[in-house]
Amino acid sequence: MKRKICFVVNSRANYARIKTAILACMNHKNLETFVIVGASGVLYRFGNVSELIEADGIEIESKLYTVVEGNDPIAMAKTTGLSLIDLAQEFHRIKPDVVVTVADRYETIATAIAASYMNIPVAHTQGGEVTGSIDESVRHAITKLSHIHFPATKNAADVLLRLGESAEKIFWVGCPALDLAHQVQREPIESVMNKYHGVGNKLDFSKPFLLVSQHPVTTEFMDARQQIEQTLNAVLASKIQAIWLWPNVDSGSDALSKRIREFREEHDDANLHFYRNFSSEDYVNILREATCIVGNSSSGIREASFLGTPSVNIGSRQNGRDRAPNVIDVGYSASEIETAIQTQSKHGRYQSSEIFGNGFAGVQMAEILASVDLNVDKKLNFHA
Amino acid sequence: MKRKICFVVNSRANYARIKTAILACMNHKNLETFVIVGASGVLYRFGNVSELIEADGIEIESKLYTVVEGNDPIAMAKTTGLSLIDLAQEFHRIKPDVVVTVADRYETIATAIAASYMNIPVAHTQGGEVTGSIDESVRHAITKLSHIHFPATKNAADVLLRLGESAEKIFWVGCPALDLAHQVQREPIESVMNKYHGVGNKLDFSKPFLLVSQHPVTTEFMDARQQIEQTLNAVLASKIQAIWLWPNVDSGSDALSKRIREFREEHDDANLHFYRNFSSEDYVNILREATCIVGNSSSGIREASFLGTPSVNIGSRQNGRDRAPNVIDVGYSASEIETAIQTQSKHGRYQSSEIFGNGFAGVQMAEILASVDLNVDKKLNFHA
Amino acid sequence: MKRKICFVVNSRANYARIKTAILACMNHKNLETFVIVGASGVLYRFGNVSELIEADGIEIESKLYTVVEGNDPIAMAKTTGLSLIDLAQEFHRIKPDVVVTVADRYETIATAIAASYMNIPVAHTQGGEVTGSIDESVRHAITKLSHIHFPATKNAADVLLRLGESAEKIFWVGCPALDLAHQVQREPIESVMNKYHGVGNKLDFSKPFLLVSQHPVTTEFMDARQQIEQTLNAVLASKIQAIWLWPNVDSGSDALSKRIREFREEHDDANLHFYRNFSSEDYVNILREATCIVGNSSSGIREASFLGTPSVNIGSRQNGRDRAPNVIDVGYSASEIETAIQTQSKHGRYQSSEIFGNGFAGVQMAEILASVDLNVDKKLNFHA
Amino acid sequence: MKRKICFVVNSRANYARIKTAILACMNHKNLETFVIVGASGVLYRFGNVSELIEADGIEIESKLYTVVEGNDPIAMAKTTGLSLIDLAQEFHRIKPDVVVTVADRYETIATAIAASYMNIPVAHTQGGEVTGSIDESVRHAITKLSHIHFPATKNAADVLLRLGESAEKIFWVGCPALDLAHQVQREPIESVMNKYHGVGNKLDFSKPFLLVSQHPVTTEFMDARQQIEQTLNAVLASKIQAIWLWPNVDSGSDALSKRIREFREEHDDANLHFYRNFSSEDYVNILREATCIVGNSSSGIREASFLGTPSVNIGSRQNGRDRAPNVIDVGYSASEIETAIQTQSKHGRYQSSEIFGNGFAGVQMAEILASVDLNVDKKLNFHA
Repeated sequence: MKRKICFVVNSRANYARIKTAILACMNHKNLETFVIVGASGVLYRFGNVSELIEADGIEIESKLYTVVEGNDPIAMAKTTGLSLIDLAQEFHRIKPDVVVTVADRYETIATAIAASYMNIPVAHTQGGEVTGSIDESVRHAITKLSHIHFPATKNAADVLLRLGESAEKIFWVGCPALDLAHQVQREPIESVMNKYHGVGNKLDFSKPFLLVSQHPVTTEFMDARQQIEQTLNAVLASKIQAIWLWPNVDSGSDALSKRIREFREEHDDANLHFYRNFSSEDYVNILREATCIVGNSSSGIREASFLGTPSVNIGSRQNGRDRAPNVIDVGYSASEIETAIQTQSKHGRYQSSEIFGNGFAGVQMAEILASVDLNVDKKLNFHA
Repeated sequence: MKRKICFVVNSRANYARIKTAILACMNHKNLETFVIVGASGVLYRFGNVSELIEADGIEIESKLYTVVEGNDPIAMAKTTGLSLIDLAQEFHRIKPDVVVTVADRYETIATAIAASYMNIPVAHTQGGEVTGSIDESVRHAITKLSHIHFPATKNAADVLLRLGESAEKIFWVGCPALDLAHQVQREPIESVMNKYHGVGNKLDFSKPFLLVSQHPVTTEFMDARQQIEQTLNAVLASKIQAIWLWPNVDSGSDALSKRIREFREEHDDANLHFYRNFSSEDYVNILREATCIVGNSSSGIREASFLGTPSVNIGSRQNGRDRAPNVIDVGYSASEIETAIQTQSKHGRYQSSEIFGNGFAGVQMAEILASVDLNVDKKLNFHA
Repeated sequence: MKRKICFVVNSRANYARIKTAILACMNHKNLETFVIVGASGVLYRFGNVSELIEADGIEIESKLYTVVEGNDPIAMAKTTGLSLIDLAQEFHRIKPDVVVTVADRYETIATAIAASYMNIPVAHTQGGEVTGSIDESVRHAITKLSHIHFPATKNAADVLLRLGESAEKIFWVGCPALDLAHQVQREPIESVMNKYHGVGNKLDFSKPFLLVSQHPVTTEFMDARQQIEQTLNAVLASKIQAIWLWPNVDSGSDALSKRIREFREEHDDANLHFYRNFSSEDYVNILREATCIVGNSSSGIREASFLGTPSVNIGSRQNGRDRAPNVIDVGYSASEIETAIQTQSKHGRYQSSEIFGNGFAGVQMAEILASVDLNVDKKLNFHA
Repeated sequence: MKRKICFVVNSRANYARIKTAILACMNHKNLETFVIVGASGVLYRFGNVSELIEADGIEIESKLYTVVEGNDPIAMAKTTGLSLIDLAQEFHRIKPDVVVTVADRYETIATAIAASYMNIPVAHTQGGEVTGSIDESVRHAITKLSHIHFPATKNAADVLLRLGESAEKIFWVGCPALDLAHQVQREPIESVMNKYHGVGNKLDFSKPFLLVSQHPVTTEFMDARQQIEQTLNAVLASKIQAIWLWPNVDSGSDALSKRIREFREEHDDANLHFYRNFSSEDYVNILREATCIVGNSSSGIREASFLGTPSVNIGSRQNGRDRAPNVIDVGYSASEIETAIQTQSKHGRYQSSEIFGNGFAGVQMAEILASVDLNVDKKLNFHA
């Protein structure tokens, strides 16, 4: 009998980090694969990744509408509660042998709680990373509820060991997002960008461009407006045209989006063009060609390190994460940001790094999920 | 301005473990105290501890009906989801400076998630204990979401340190349940028992009696019926009369209660009398006088160690917890259980132990809550 | 393509009133049938009708755990809210062409809301009955959200017309519960009762017996204890032995159950035997043989009229419902109840009445569901 | 002891229709007034009416985050479920003597269910209106759960009687929205519009302008994009500049907003300016000055009739509602819409009508709420 592996995908970012593992499970002869899409993953405002998933030939078992709207942290808590209710029902119906939960979005913990309470082993990707902010607390809490760990880096695997997880359940396979960066065929940037509409001024892709992606930091949500202001001014001052991605669905995103909209009206000549999202493949090609990625997206740390793209990482959101030499860290300061953009622009591309994996994470995960011992008993295991 | 401390009490067991801390906060001149009662704490079937709390002169800010009924683990997950939704709403309204969450019941994690997502510092009691079963995973996950720790034992405090919590936020104050054991006036057992009705045969309190309290183990809920069967037979064989407490609300409790009811019908001459619950004070006096406590209640480990009452601890539920010499551990086997009861009965009382505290936990917790630095920023902090 | 018909069954009582319709739909060549069981229908405490359904060869598409526990009306409201959330998810997944909702339990309205909001036609049974209490308000509210009506009586069909429902969507087919009464083979009462255990004193089924079934009235839940007291005393005074059914899950049932338990302890010689539930078929045979049915169950009005069993109907719960001559209505008074029991005992059986149908409701409903126009547009349609 | 009146406001539109009643209750010496704001009423995307309410000097007892996001009808059902859960908790805490629920938004029924299940009398405004679409079904369902009725028109009061409501609980007081139209001081349109920013091209308020407000029709949500297209083209063709309000939060609003955004990009010279919302007072003055109101907002039927503003009402959303001579009804057709705009533009203002009230609804409602018999018993009462 095939093992039933159930993936829960809650956002576009989630999907990019797990896609190759889903495909590898679907192709594995001893696995039956289920995909549940929930939270911002089914919402138009946040790029409705469920359409993308289906376009990739993956059947979605169920779509869960669980996002409670509100520009206040209460909405995060209620979204998690509603996710828990819906996921419990789905797991009860599907009866998976393993549930796979991705990373550390606030509602991700709902997957880990529902499955572990229902005696279903939980496999967790990206555990053990140290970043500060509520994401880190959530990530470690998920680790404590999980039974099988797929950390992205060697350092993260070490952290899991120190947290008392069992060595035989920790599998350092790298991050599946890198698999994509590894597999995606190069495509000329003009051809990539022609697929998307967006709003804003027309960019000229024969010239250098920045890729900007800045999300609100949930523990600093009162400052969201002020923080994005610095980045907007720095990018404007850099005089380099920019592809700008709308922020994700966390607390603070309304204020942040609002400020971006106002800024556009105030600076209608700025060479900025705004996009809701790109397919994972196209994103890799855009990131590969960008002069520099600016903001606090983890892709500036992760995929960019593999692709050798310079990165200006702003603020606390990626604090503590492993990083390769391609990253310059700066505070929420327009001048710091602009200086770093200029430095990176002069430096040009970096050498590819493998600290986040070598491009074969998905296939390895599928193989492990097919063979690993599935015991839900778990105990603190401090290693000497 | 007074700090607002908000306690969330989810069960009778919770209350016994936090009561003296609540009272100490109410008496502290710099603290304003709020008490929310939720989950089984508002339900008649599980002893409706809210009545007891009000009888103790504590005003209840709100009562949350969050238990989703069902003899299946899905009910635990959904109860947690509903708790999260309700608690988020209450924290949004009350705006506490600190939320205190007690121990490790499955719905307790809802308190930690709601508060930490809403940037409210979480104080957690009984973290760091190592017990096996889902309770342990939940307990460590709550630790990772908490900011202030009140472990009950020195060993538990060490575990918190090893888990990467900051030393300056770990306060070993002992367990408030011991405060009660310390404070409660002795009262003759006949006078104590006259306050309660219960069902079953009449007991003679001038003679030795057992106190039996056995809860289902949630990860073994399919075996609940079989497990209680062993205990029922052992107690019957011991020929010692018994005060028997109904099990709590976890998965498996229906099967367990059902088997107890059938057993009563089959053995209508057995010297067993069944009670829903006792006040915390009366419980201390019953436990103090019992020949032996039998089952898997943590009071057999905790309060019993302080009171010197012999304890026969059955099965995996208290695995890994610190214990004093008063405890004999046995498996789910009628003969093992009966032998241990006879051994303890011969041994008689043990010397009082202070591994779970010295009776002043509540007052110390109030003082710390009034003065501790309230920062929600948190980061893994591995010591040496 | 077959029409997908989705039944939602929320309690044992629901099931008895819809079972033959479900079976008829399963046997209909143009229909595909889905059964969702929710609310008290999946709970052991209330007879877990889902086991019975499966034993009848009906596959259950999903089981929804939606009962929020609590001896307070807030629990009814929250249960309805949780039902709405779960049902919406299931309807989104199953995509039925029609949803069938049964009668008027408080959580039943969740089915009507979820389906009608999602543009799925709602078929409603037992609309148009006039009974007083919150059940009546809920019943008429469901009518206003429903598109296809299956009233049980001619009077009820007339009420639906007067409420502005369209004549061409009102189908008077009788109540499916009567189909069972019509179909069930006679079986000697001793053989029927041997299948059940129950608790209480042994009854002698060669002698006359009462069948007692009294539920709390939700708008009078504060009086539940006092009301059951009268019935207990009347039955005791009648000196006729009684089969007694535990009450259902509404507000007030805890108080009511508690009083029954105490009464048992106080009168351990009373010829009462208590049962959780019977299969629908066995219930028909018990009702057929009973000297008299006592309480406020609608089966005393409905099935009893068809079977000719005398009925003593207590209090307001069945107010305003159509009734045949077999019913004597009394207040919450021990003496009134006892007098009525004696009168009915002397009278003996009544002639069979067809006001609630002639035993072919289920088959007719299936045929209508297969052919009726499925338009969700709806407008007040006052006739003349 | 003062009666506690609890209003639940779920949207900006709700507030405009109840504001004067809230203020009148606050000013009534025998009433204590509570205001709960929920659903889209707390959301930035939908004008966050809670800020407006506080600015009007009304204290908000609690803000409920209950909107489940999603461009699919499932989101409406889940929002209603979550509203029910939250409102039950609030009513349990506040213990109001009467709950007032406004009109017929899909989540409004949650208020009526929670209160009526908890034995709290429900007062309902705007019952008895006949409009088609799911709103009508919801409205009549709320009527069946309500105890006190405040219909807006004489026809609506007659419908309530025919639906079996008791004459002594039906109070025709008119619509409080008209009170505002009656009370608001005239203010020059330039001064009004200067308070708002919006996005789009600059308008010249010394010249005629249209006011456009078109919401998605929930039963036709698949057509939302296509429907708004017709209106956009008609307004463009009319060559009259337009103040355009963003649609509300119902199913279909995402598609509708998206089409509006695209249209703006495609026609950047169109004299359209887009606003999220206006204060109730400012809205009255804008509506008073508009050449014509276009769309399907009920204010085109209601306030416009009192103010004498010409109205072009598009599609089915206001079907069946009473209307004064100021309304021309048209289908979803650009040419029909444009022709009607031109006709109305030529006709100019109409005479004021009082079919929706004379401007004193709020004060009358307060007086009735203070004195009406508060009985939750309710029974169908067909009048001759």
